[in-house]
Amino acid sequence: MKESFEFRPIGLLATPFKEKFGVPRQSLMMSEAKGVLTLFKDPNYPQALRHLDQFSHIWLIFVFHKSLTKPWHPLIDTPRIAEKMGVFATRSPHRPNCIGMSAVQLDHIDWDAPQGIQLHVSGLDLLDETPVLDIKPYVPYADRIESANSGWIQSDIEKYVVRFSEESMADLEHQEQHPNLQALIQQMLELDPRPTSQRRAHPIQDPESDKLKFAFRILDCDVQWKVHQGTILVERIKELEA
Amino acid sequence: MKESFEFRPIGLLATPFKEKFGVPRQSLMMSEAKGVLTLFKDPNYPQALRHLDQFSHIWLIFVFHKSLTKPWHPLIDTPRIAEKMGVFATRSPHRPNCIGMSAVQLDHIDWDAPQGIQLHVSGLDLLDETPVLDIKPYVPYADRIESANSGWIQSDIEKYVVRFSEESMADLEHQEQHPNLQALIQQMLELDPRPTSQRRAHPIQDPESDKLKFAFRILDCDVQWKVHQGTILVERIKELEA
Repeated sequence: MKESFEFRPIGLLATPFKEKFGVPRQSLMMSEAKGVLTLFKDPNYPQALRHLDQFSHIWLIFVFHKSLTKPWHPLIDTPRIAEKMGVFATRSPHRPNCIGMSAVQLDHIDWDAPQGIQLHVSGLDLLDETPVLDIKPYVPYADRIESANSGWIQSDIEKYVVRFSEESMADLEHQEQHPNLQALIQQMLELDPRPTSQRRAHPIQDPESDKLKFAFRILDCDVQWKVHQGTILVERIKELEA
Repeated sequence: MKESFEFRPIGLLATPFKEKFGVPRQSLMMSEAKGVLTLFKDPNYPQALRHLDQFSHIWLIFVFHKSLTKPWHPLIDTPRIAEKMGVFATRSPHRPNCIGMSAVQLDHIDWDAPQGIQLHVSGLDLLDETPVLDIKPYVPYADRIESANSGWIQSDIEKYVVRFSEESMADLEHQEQHPNLQALIQQMLELDPRPTSQRRAHPIQDPESDKLKFAFRILDCDVQWKVHQGTILVERIKELEA
């Protein structure tokens, strides 16, 4: 048998997520997270996409490109459970082979974009510039398994109240090029993206939680937030220098 | 960006399917198709699998190893529709990157098999000796999309009556090491695995269909069958020489 297999990306996915912090693993709960997959120019791709637009949802097979240079570890800290899980029992990016798969909604295909054919998708949890290896249709009779259980994964994830300070609302007014930015930030924060260790040491109701400030980058903004009286408070949404 | 990415298999999947002919693309309709994924020996794998057995279903990410040396074509003949489809709108193995994904039922894990850890799975449509790149849990809230449509794919696939000749029933009596062989053959044949061109030229009700004989290899048997008066008739199930 061949010792290894080599694959070449077919395109690159642009998403709002510039870094891992803050990106939930619940892609389909993130309906506001939209991305654009630009395919490399290949004379066969227009035909290869024929009738893909009949599908409401597609799978993207991609490379966890930020995890490639890191060694993999067999056990993984999970966000909501105290026990470590085997990496194959998780969807963590740090795997022996850094291949990911994500079902996303296919919004439309722009056949004539100057950069190449562009697939507009939503419901994403992937980092910006993710190399995509394959596109497959989501096929309900094969992929939608009614009898599947959720293993150790909690499916009823608690959502927290997210509030926006007056200053952050003023910041948003400067972001008219991203009309869904507030909704996107809300979807990210209501799942409480604090690191597992933080969340465990200081539950959101614990007054100690209010002492630390957090920030993550989304699109070209730095979102600054904290826990405040059992809710999540967005303090500022600062535009970053280009 | 990197031009290509290299991945190494974590194990090999043994299945009853020695050749593509006869293997339906409807893995989960093939509950009788059972396989064994034997992982290569790696001191980290036992931990990496911790708690995977809490899941009823898992994804296998694998290589379509029989398609690697063949050039890909952008348009694909589909089994039940007259029009050709773009390869990205199908789950065909002949893709720019020969990566497949399949949700299968995880029956049990044998931690102590002498060959290496073995995952026993069912509901398969993969060829024997498929190299597996990754195992992921099936996570209903991410993978089970209630609102997804089926695109061009017919979900109500017609099933045909499969009959077994007396000779084939006698053949089965010699196969006590494969107690589910008859059920497996039935599941394969009731979907009418004749090549698309055949099926289109000669629908199963057409008396012309009765003239041709077919055979495929499954496990260590040669299954010989034909269309007969609008049903599918298994004539012989001959054991192949080792």
